[in-house]
Amino acid sequence: MLMTDIIERKRDGYKLSKEEIEFFVKGYTEGSIPDYQASALCMAIYLKGMDDEEATALAIAMRDSGDKMDLSSIPGKKVDKHSTGGVGDKTSLVLAPLVASFGLKFAKMSGRGLGHTGGTLDKLESINGYNIGIAPEAFVNQVKNVGMAIVGQTGNLTPADKKLYALRDVTATVSSIPLIASSIMSKKLAAGADIIVLDVKVGAGAFMKTLDDARHLARLMVQIGSNCGRNMTAVLTNMEEPLGLAVGNALEVIEAINTLKGHGPKDLLDLCLEIGSYQLTDAGIFATREEAKAAMRENIANGKALAKFKEFVAAQGGDASFADDTTKFAQAKEILEVKADKAGYVSHIDALAIGHAGMLLGAGRETMADVIDPAVGIVLNKKVGDKVEKGEALCYVYTNGKNTKESMERAFNAFKISSEHTEPQLILDVIR
Amino acid sequence: MLMTDIIERKRDGYKLSKEEIEFFVKGYTEGSIPDYQASALCMAIYLKGMDDEEATALAIAMRDSGDKMDLSSIPGKKVDKHSTGGVGDKTSLVLAPLVASFGLKFAKMSGRGLGHTGGTLDKLESINGYNIGIAPEAFVNQVKNVGMAIVGQTGNLTPADKKLYALRDVTATVSSIPLIASSIMSKKLAAGADIIVLDVKVGAGAFMKTLDDARHLARLMVQIGSNCGRNMTAVLTNMEEPLGLAVGNALEVIEAINTLKGHGPKDLLDLCLEIGSYQLTDAGIFATREEAKAAMRENIANGKALAKFKEFVAAQGGDASFADDTTKFAQAKEILEVKADKAGYVSHIDALAIGHAGMLLGAGRETMADVIDPAVGIVLNKKVGDKVEKGEALCYVYTNGKNTKESMERAFNAFKISSEHTEPQLILDVIR
Repeated sequence: MLMTDIIERKRDGYKLSKEEIEFFVKGYTEGSIPDYQASALCMAIYLKGMDDEEATALAIAMRDSGDKMDLSSIPGKKVDKHSTGGVGDKTSLVLAPLVASFGLKFAKMSGRGLGHTGGTLDKLESINGYNIGIAPEAFVNQVKNVGMAIVGQTGNLTPADKKLYALRDVTATVSSIPLIASSIMSKKLAAGADIIVLDVKVGAGAFMKTLDDARHLARLMVQIGSNCGRNMTAVLTNMEEPLGLAVGNALEVIEAINTLKGHGPKDLLDLCLEIGSYQLTDAGIFATREEAKAAMRENIANGKALAKFKEFVAAQGGDASFADDTTKFAQAKEILEVKADKAGYVSHIDALAIGHAGMLLGAGRETMADVIDPAVGIVLNKKVGDKVEKGEALCYVYTNGKNTKESMERAFNAFKISSEHTEPQLILDVIR
Repeated sequence: MLMTDIIERKRDGYKLSKEEIEFFVKGYTEGSIPDYQASALCMAIYLKGMDDEEATALAIAMRDSGDKMDLSSIPGKKVDKHSTGGVGDKTSLVLAPLVASFGLKFAKMSGRGLGHTGGTLDKLESINGYNIGIAPEAFVNQVKNVGMAIVGQTGNLTPADKKLYALRDVTATVSSIPLIASSIMSKKLAAGADIIVLDVKVGAGAFMKTLDDARHLARLMVQIGSNCGRNMTAVLTNMEEPLGLAVGNALEVIEAINTLKGHGPKDLLDLCLEIGSYQLTDAGIFATREEAKAAMRENIANGKALAKFKEFVAAQGGDASFADDTTKFAQAKEILEVKADKAGYVSHIDALAIGHAGMLLGAGRETMADVIDPAVGIVLNKKVGDKVEKGEALCYVYTNGKNTKESMERAFNAFKISSEHTEPQLILDVIR
């Protein structure tokens, strides 16, 4: 088999066979296929596409390129959740302890963030002592004993995907739906969970700008996972405005804790209940999604979900008392109001612009070498649909003095105020 | 300027600016842009195309990536000719001395062959002593004094094209019309001639399989050259059957010599007269193409064209007596007949198959490390349109014993014999 023939066939729009895809992934991982051939193939895939079978074969070949997490020693169903990435997305921090409080096993490997705000790991590191670097055996034990773990990638999982993603990042071939789907699914398959819920963000603040693209990506990922015997759900959610109110690392963890205490923003809670209800019913813990949702509200009210969060934080070396007293989190020196210059209804909040406003303050990374400031960020005072008076706060900028003015301008410009009332819709579709 | 932005813009079908193309060519030549980004861009160009302005900018940027041949010290118009490559193509060996016999200056840099048969340089090296490696000054002096030179590339011409072509060769991005056009034209522009005739081969035995593609390529190259102030002509010629009768290195030089002596195959002579008539009238040596053609026939009949050939060979260190006594060329040990198995008219000769038959015998290279056997090859006894009897020779296989049987089979299968008479057409179009 020749790599040039494989590139040529994809270039000409033909379907690649399982064997061709395996040959490519194996050769590229080993280094016998050079970067310049892989990037030519990625561009051909970007422009000519891949069907479900090809994307499945690519995901499986990448899954098999390294170690796989073996969760079989943990009794019962194991769940995982993945978000394609949005602004203010702290869902896992609420969802995982919430469903784990019913005995469901939540085994999540997460990443750091590049761009807007930090990733889940960056956020969790705003809790003193929290350790993301846990060996595979310890990860499995924690999931078994505590019911949940959120760690950085442990073990040599999907080296092919790591290498290929780094290449795609510098060759303008990231935003290809089959390549995104197979990349995400290779990691999720290698991570070993039985029940996987994908949160596919849609809108200006997300990878997928249109509902059509998001549906295509979601269907493909659900298909790949189902082909591999996993129980799959994709929830398509609106990323035209940030999720919840807080954007920034410590600020988002505090918001997650507040949600677990019963006073979180409605959209964040709704999303956690939606995803959690699929996980809990698919695992057979509840018969209907309505029962599951009612039970989750109950475990928030009775403190069990928060207790599970604290147990999990402590298990990973973190100071669980941060959950009781959120003033222990790093605090920004100044909190400044961004005020409305007219009255009306908030009709749109540009999530990407809010993300950038946060990044300017130090909440995100422009390059992997940048250090995140956990204290800074933006907290919305108004969401889409809210009424606002002239001079009222649209949001608050939590700053330690870095780029404050630019950030406030960016945040101000992110808001659109209209005379008409708009009702935001969070969950756009569910694909199973 | 960021290379990823340039790749992304071409990927999305946008036109690249002159500045973007220059940035890419400069960076790639210097090594600041890596192969994997260049190959992704080549694939995007392959699939999204380039318009005339972009291809012109690419040709000029590659022309300017290294040295340029300065022919200004040679009085009068300088001509060059390029063929996109076919089987049995020894046109330059006849054409150059023919037009140079009228004082026209023919300055040609040529290449070695990969695939089918040897390149022009390989063919000329079948003359004892012929030296292809001549320094730039000596090249210019020979063109000035003798009127012609055919050498390997001299000086550091178009390093960007060399590097990019080698990359395209291993990333399935060779057969892109704008990339082919800008590659050829970068070299022709750097080589410095005023009048450039391109022979674009069309058909199964050529790069361009269809007349539409060939026209597109020809128009683009004429446009690029014209934009740079060169006098351009593209002749589109049939490569459904080999040109002339001989396919093989010494065999083709002998056929060229025979043509200069007045007894060459009609199609080869016709093509040389066609191209030569454009060159001689464009240079102002004759007023009409008819006059030019008549004069060229005259210079064949009176021996002036052959004398120029001998003068040129001697100037490059070759043994000019080979032209008087062609038995001095390396001779194959055996000449075997490939016979017709039925009577009829030859309706098609698969040029690529004849080329492969020659390569099997040792007339071409599969890899650049292969050594060419100058003596071996195929000589057609029948061309398209010829009547053939059962048992009559279709062609002769000149062999030194390597793969003789396979070569004869390949050659036999290259011929189609039909009950209907087909009239071959050599020149399909001329674009100026």
